[in-house]
Amino acid sequence: MFDIALYDSTLRDGAQTEGVSFSVDDKLSIAMMLDSVGVDYVEGGFAISNEKDMAFFKTVAERKFRHARITAFGSTRRASLKVENDPGVAAMLAARTPAVAVVGKSWDLHVRDVLRASLDANLAMIADTVRYLKAKGIEVVYDAEHFFDGYRNNLDHAMATLRAAKDGGADALVLCDTNGGSITSEVTAITAAVVKEFGGCIGFHGHNDTGMAVANTVAAVQAGAVHVQGTVNGMGERAGNADLCQVAPNLQLKLGRRCMSDENLRRLRELSLYVSEMANMPLDDTRPYVGRHAFAHKGGLHVDAVQKNKTTYEHIAPESVGNERRLLLSELSGKATVLAKMEEYDLTHDPEIMKKALAEIQRLENEGYQFESAEGSFALLVKRLLGRERKFFELMGFRVIVEKRGHNEQPLTEATVKIRVPAGEEQLSASEGDGPVNALDGALRGALNRFYPGLNDMHLGDYKVRVINPAAGTAARVRVVIESRDMNDVWGTVGVSENLIEASWQALVDSIVYKLLKDEDRAGDAGVA
Amino acid sequence: MFDIALYDSTLRDGAQTEGVSFSVDDKLSIAMMLDSVGVDYVEGGFAISNEKDMAFFKTVAERKFRHARITAFGSTRRASLKVENDPGVAAMLAARTPAVAVVGKSWDLHVRDVLRASLDANLAMIADTVRYLKAKGIEVVYDAEHFFDGYRNNLDHAMATLRAAKDGGADALVLCDTNGGSITSEVTAITAAVVKEFGGCIGFHGHNDTGMAVANTVAAVQAGAVHVQGTVNGMGERAGNADLCQVAPNLQLKLGRRCMSDENLRRLRELSLYVSEMANMPLDDTRPYVGRHAFAHKGGLHVDAVQKNKTTYEHIAPESVGNERRLLLSELSGKATVLAKMEEYDLTHDPEIMKKALAEIQRLENEGYQFESAEGSFALLVKRLLGRERKFFELMGFRVIVEKRGHNEQPLTEATVKIRVPAGEEQLSASEGDGPVNALDGALRGALNRFYPGLNDMHLGDYKVRVINPAAGTAARVRVVIESRDMNDVWGTVGVSENLIEASWQALVDSIVYKLLKDEDRAGDAGVA
Repeated sequence: MFDIALYDSTLRDGAQTEGVSFSVDDKLSIAMMLDSVGVDYVEGGFAISNEKDMAFFKTVAERKFRHARITAFGSTRRASLKVENDPGVAAMLAARTPAVAVVGKSWDLHVRDVLRASLDANLAMIADTVRYLKAKGIEVVYDAEHFFDGYRNNLDHAMATLRAAKDGGADALVLCDTNGGSITSEVTAITAAVVKEFGGCIGFHGHNDTGMAVANTVAAVQAGAVHVQGTVNGMGERAGNADLCQVAPNLQLKLGRRCMSDENLRRLRELSLYVSEMANMPLDDTRPYVGRHAFAHKGGLHVDAVQKNKTTYEHIAPESVGNERRLLLSELSGKATVLAKMEEYDLTHDPEIMKKALAEIQRLENEGYQFESAEGSFALLVKRLLGRERKFFELMGFRVIVEKRGHNEQPLTEATVKIRVPAGEEQLSASEGDGPVNALDGALRGALNRFYPGLNDMHLGDYKVRVINPAAGTAARVRVVIESRDMNDVWGTVGVSENLIEASWQALVDSIVYKLLKDEDRAGDAGVA
Repeated sequence: MFDIALYDSTLRDGAQTEGVSFSVDDKLSIAMMLDSVGVDYVEGGFAISNEKDMAFFKTVAERKFRHARITAFGSTRRASLKVENDPGVAAMLAARTPAVAVVGKSWDLHVRDVLRASLDANLAMIADTVRYLKAKGIEVVYDAEHFFDGYRNNLDHAMATLRAAKDGGADALVLCDTNGGSITSEVTAITAAVVKEFGGCIGFHGHNDTGMAVANTVAAVQAGAVHVQGTVNGMGERAGNADLCQVAPNLQLKLGRRCMSDENLRRLRELSLYVSEMANMPLDDTRPYVGRHAFAHKGGLHVDAVQKNKTTYEHIAPESVGNERRLLLSELSGKATVLAKMEEYDLTHDPEIMKKALAEIQRLENEGYQFESAEGSFALLVKRLLGRERKFFELMGFRVIVEKRGHNEQPLTEATVKIRVPAGEEQLSASEGDGPVNALDGALRGALNRFYPGLNDMHLGDYKVRVINPAAGTAARVRVVIESRDMNDVWGTVGVSENLIEASWQALVDSIVYKLLKDEDRAGDAGVA
């Protein structure tokens, strides 16, 4: 572990964002991503709150993580129950995670008004719960809810709650600014006072209601905290949580306090984009460090100065967080990313193809394509540019009809697809479906199955739609991303159009072509071996 | 004037935001709005940079402002020119504003590499320019560009530039974190050192590249600054400027340092929404203080506690910044949330309807509906449960055809809708569209417009699709959320189905019915008054 522990709460606090709803698969994918960039703790959810979170913990228990410790979240025992009989505590144990986060009350007002318990009872609830979980051999992160409000209102009780958790054996004591109402000078002073008393086991968890979550988190570290909590892109209810994509580079590049490897820090923008795609929330272009505009330079003189001496107008090197300088005169976006990706195809030695590929990718990105979660479409694009395209079939046409008769009737959907396979045969195939994309999928497979029986292995995993220019309402351009799976792989494909059906069709066709190519390559390999 | 002067740069730095372009009229409207909420300085633009800014200054010179001082921005004279011959300085005079902001270099690196002048020449340029403008009877705000970088690199020169401006007669010395790379502890220390030397004429201008612009601005005031610069909604290039809509309430409600009247502070959300409309940039819902989510509460227990004691979960009273508490409905929400929400409809006194409503909402949530961003559908649901449903039209049927002929052709989309309006007439209407939802929208409006001309005011804002059970692939159930707007309101509606078209149709119909109901209610109110 580095100087400062990174604790991610995207899957719990981040999932509280209005309009966001992660599936179990989404949560799993995000947990794997967080692990791969070296986050220390991944808080998976509130153990007792709902079945979805428990399903996640069950799935995750069977997975190997390289680095991250999956953490279940729960409250201290209820005032009226013994700890061994408390269902919330039992749920944390049932989650079978290597670490748990136990949240307890620090604010006397809450103890009285919400718990309706005495202050002494609160201390016992904290100590009992932490001690019980520690005795089971689990790492315990103690979250002191409303700590700053509690400290301001009743300093003695707030400090006593930390003492109770510490005496119970808590591994970290996390000061939570739950209402997000604290300003940086308060966080600095209070954290320093706590660190003076408890030493180097203090963490900070901030919300952004004053617009200071990031500054507060960094200030807490300067005051001696060694553990920081936050979410990717600052997801969270109200004004959100501290954004780990800002906290991490500030700690590392501004304070020189290490929380991840330089290599992982260079994946920060990738992490940010990945989570924004999974959450179906467009990443704000103006986001510090990771946003598309974060290192964009406008105006001739300015751009000239940047060219002369980068440090004159850039506070850090954009590459250190996986972002890049954009000179707005030349719309040259994505070049570094594209170059890095193309390297995977050994194309960097061919400058002619590189140039062509860059131009084509930029054209597509301007139209709204994104290849971050569509490696399948990217691979097909590269093959096409290399002239290594394979025509498995040719589309002659399709027709989709959705018809509804009467207010309470379910609509009927029917798709017809006409294709030509290389042998020259025309295939006309029709299918009903639960919806237009499902019907098209059925009809296309109906036409292809006889020639490519391998398609039976493959099924579509996820289907995502994102409006690209929402100002245009229902006439807006949409991007569809489809995730497909077979026994060995998962691949994403993308389509863009003003027409939802056309965008879906593009992604659908790419997913099938990628599968056919993949099978052919495997067959080829097998033949050689 | 209050304790702290508010200096707004929305029309200059804010206008640098990528994708934003204000007309002269836009700038004038925003200036009037800023004046009406009591902002002290309104920076109108870079006097010499373009004709649009000069046209603005010309128009504005003929206007009376209640409170705000319009300010023209420009640079210190060039190294090679006398101040009276410098075209930039002449342009500032030509703007005929009561105040000017003169920007000069503080960072020795820039003096050498960008100006290619000696440090002494830089000091003379600053002193000359300020003295010349002061002699014309104009208030001079001196902006020390890159002050923090300059201070770190060559403290003596940075301080000498401030001395030159002060000796020239500058009314305020503004420390600019131009690259936005400073963190709060640095701003605190450096501002305090400057205040110690120069006393109470120091200002701060921050950019948000570390995500700390707001915290830095507030920290500067705590260190003795008495003048703060920023933009509405943090508009600005890269990661933006300090957001005055966060700075002002923090100063006033957290530090007790007054910068505007309480009455004007209650117009903060209005100001934020107004500028976001003018800039055609949707206001981020998660914006602290002014965002739609800033005081939204999710989760049963939490909502229960908010009802019991508001201060337990709210860091300030939402009304003090013109915002409001919102109780959200969500999968994590228990009975308490729904109950609180229903109170808005005065239903809590009827336990029978309450019970029915709760059961219905739970049934719909289990099917995949979500009402947190679909207040419109929720309102219609409540009306339906109360038997207060209004039948504006009845669907007899619809048909959507999407047809593509050949791989490279764009598909054609056509929708037919058959409805019956209360008068008993059947309406059959057809429309083409960019996609199936757009075509359905067109056909439905075509059938309704003659009867409900109010629909012309309304347009669809955003369209979101979410797959609810992605494991089922293209047969998965989808949730569609549509956001609609008219001149007065924004409302969300939701539809759920395995068929994307059907789900879109439900959300579309709800959005139209909600609009018709709303207009009817308004007409009713007008009739009574």
